Amino acid sequence: MENFTFYSPTYFVFGKGTESKAGECVKQFGGSKVLLHYGGGSVVRSGLLDRVKKSLEMQNISYVELGGAKPNPRSGLVYEGIELCRREKVDFILPVGGGSAIDSAKAIAIGVPYSGDFWDFFEGKTIEKALPVGTILTIAAAGSEGSCNTVITKEEGMLKRGTGSDLLRPLFSILNPELTYTLPAYQKACGAVDIMAHVFERYFTNTTGVEVTDRLCEAILLTMIKEVPKAIANPTDYDSHANVLWAGMVAHNNICGVGREQDWASHGIEHELSALYDVAHGAGLAVVFPAWMKYVMKQDVNRFAQIAMRVWGCQLDEANPEKTAREGISRFEEFLKSIGMPRTFAEIGAKAEDIPFLVKNIGLKGTKTIGAFVKLREEDVAEIYRLACNE
Amino acid sequence: MENFTFYSPTYFVFGKGTESKAGECVKQFGGSKVLLHYGGGSVVRSGLLDRVKKSLEMQNISYVELGGAKPNPRSGLVYEGIELCRREKVDFILPVGGGSAIDSAKAIAIGVPYSGDFWDFFEGKTIEKALPVGTILTIAAAGSEGSCNTVITKEEGMLKRGTGSDLLRPLFSILNPELTYTLPAYQKACGAVDIMAHVFERYFTNTTGVEVTDRLCEAILLTMIKEVPKAIANPTDYDSHANVLWAGMVAHNNICGVGREQDWASHGIEHELSALYDVAHGAGLAVVFPAWMKYVMKQDVNRFAQIAMRVWGCQLDEANPEKTAREGISRFEEFLKSIGMPRTFAEIGAKAEDIPFLVKNIGLKGTKTIGAFVKLREEDVAEIYRLACNE
Repeated sequence: MENFTFYSPTYFVFGKGTESKAGECVKQFGGSKVLLHYGGGSVVRSGLLDRVKKSLEMQNISYVELGGAKPNPRSGLVYEGIELCRREKVDFILPVGGGSAIDSAKAIAIGVPYSGDFWDFFEGKTIEKALPVGTILTIAAAGSEGSCNTVITKEEGMLKRGTGSDLLRPLFSILNPELTYTLPAYQKACGAVDIMAHVFERYFTNTTGVEVTDRLCEAILLTMIKEVPKAIANPTDYDSHANVLWAGMVAHNNICGVGREQDWASHGIEHELSALYDVAHGAGLAVVFPAWMKYVMKQDVNRFAQIAMRVWGCQLDEANPEKTAREGISRFEEFLKSIGMPRTFAEIGAKAEDIPFLVKNIGLKGTKTIGAFVKLREEDVAEIYRLACNE
Repeated sequence: MENFTFYSPTYFVFGKGTESKAGECVKQFGGSKVLLHYGGGSVVRSGLLDRVKKSLEMQNISYVELGGAKPNPRSGLVYEGIELCRREKVDFILPVGGGSAIDSAKAIAIGVPYSGDFWDFFEGKTIEKALPVGTILTIAAAGSEGSCNTVITKEEGMLKRGTGSDLLRPLFSILNPELTYTLPAYQKACGAVDIMAHVFERYFTNTTGVEVTDRLCEAILLTMIKEVPKAIANPTDYDSHANVLWAGMVAHNNICGVGREQDWASHGIEHELSALYDVAHGAGLAVVFPAWMKYVMKQDVNRFAQIAMRVWGCQLDEANPEKTAREGISRFEEFLKSIGMPRTFAEIGAKAEDIPFLVKNIGLKGTKTIGAFVKLREEDVAEIYRLACNE
């Protein structure tokens, strides 16, 4: 196990009707003028936004609004949000929605107190200041409600990049599973893949002696395998939605990742797909991750055999653990199909002839690599994209 | 799943040599005059205390010292610590040791800013103020490094009582697995039982639809079963000590307990044993918990069968799940024996004739009960103590 720090200071308020606590939470954490940031019309149509406004009003907290956050949130709206916050002297950012609204909100939060271009932080500048952020989550997926990260797509060049800082951990996050009922089945499945991918990126590591984090990772995966099909089959089943929603937070606040080298190549490889084809992040991950697994498996067949046994219920073939490892990947692919996820380039409208362009955009020049479990160079990434073309 | 809040804001610094960060951490969290609180001579003899002092000195942080914290920490030393802190104008409490030093430190932290008797908080008064606490942990057991709780024994009457508040969550906790190497095997085993008990108290619940917390609980138990024997067999094996140390925190910061009714009867039942016989808390739990399990098992045989299968590797007897459930309890008992833990009253010097006195001390008058999975009355507790007399 490697040395680490773990810091997850967010105050989580979880359960039915908890959006009515928004005003109390903002007040408790010192906000007096709020930016309500959200995506499309669903939070308006459902009445959620009105309930949140009412809760703020009851605490005499004033607010301004900015809608329009999209999946793969864009830099243009972030600039708009920064201007609005400065003009209106906003001191607290409150996204209401999924990872897109939250990530967009986090980018606004770092941009407001910074005199330069907020995009600097997505090109490596260290974050030193940010407005406080709270969240009201409506989608189990990105884990942004408990994480220190944000991912934004820059419209010029469609570059999708991430940044992180403990300053971006929400001060509070409100999670009401009922708010996730109305999401279409396809988007629930996309969110599930994102959550599982957050675990995989941490699970496949060269660090040894990390049983406790292995087991925590497996706990989240086992939960997802059991609860996601239930949540998709029954859109008003409280407990399955609750389990998935909380698993999504636990998968990404890093309790599943401490003490080990993490990979994150597949996220990078997927980001180019969602940036170019505007495909949902989870759908892109469903296409990329099995291909990545097949390509890197031989780096540690025993680790792949371990997850096959502990998570996918495979029996160990002692004479041939690689067979067990491959069976685990097959069962993951079957699970993806069972929840309606795409599995190939063709299914998400991606094209084999774009592979050179995709690879180039990742920016692996010379000896630069992506990932840690296996350090991938341009030709490796190209091969993973090619594997993702096949059924 | 029930509504819940989850708040674990402690900044954890984990790994080799991390005690050298003590000064930086105290400074980061605003301390300028520290009470160093510890137990016996081992932190002095090992040189740990000197390394911590040096780290404080390097940040120009002054300190006073109070040693003498004992297992089942006593109220007398808490009063002494409160006086010392007031006299020396201490603004930060830094225990160096195990759960005893940390619990004693937390009690001092609530006593200093309170004009009355600190014991009031152990009789139900709400904690509204406390000095900030950081910790340097040397024993994997109590989970106090990440929890909101403290347990103190009042010398008059040897009453062992607990209290809790988010104000008692340490601002930082430094965990170096190497510091846990020198603990005697018996004490390592006691710590392991305490950690597993913290999980059991949360696992056995009447709340349904809590798969994610079930799985997290199981992850910690599986880790303990694998890593504790290794840590006992090889006192300088870094990874096993690291896994156990981190599992101890995760077991008790409540990530394993959210969204469900928790029990805590066994802790209450054990407290009377350790108060009367001054037996180690973990050893007392090793005696009480299997007896409690046998007594309450029929409340939910399927839950006991589930843990038997998922944690203890039992095969489900579909025609007779109670058999599977009992087999799980037997395997737990075998595990306790294998790590050198006592299993009966006699082995810890407890006496069957004391049972009426023990039961009376729990204070279950009239319709008052202890526990939640099964609400236990005086006669139930007496029966559990009687079961604990037998092999």
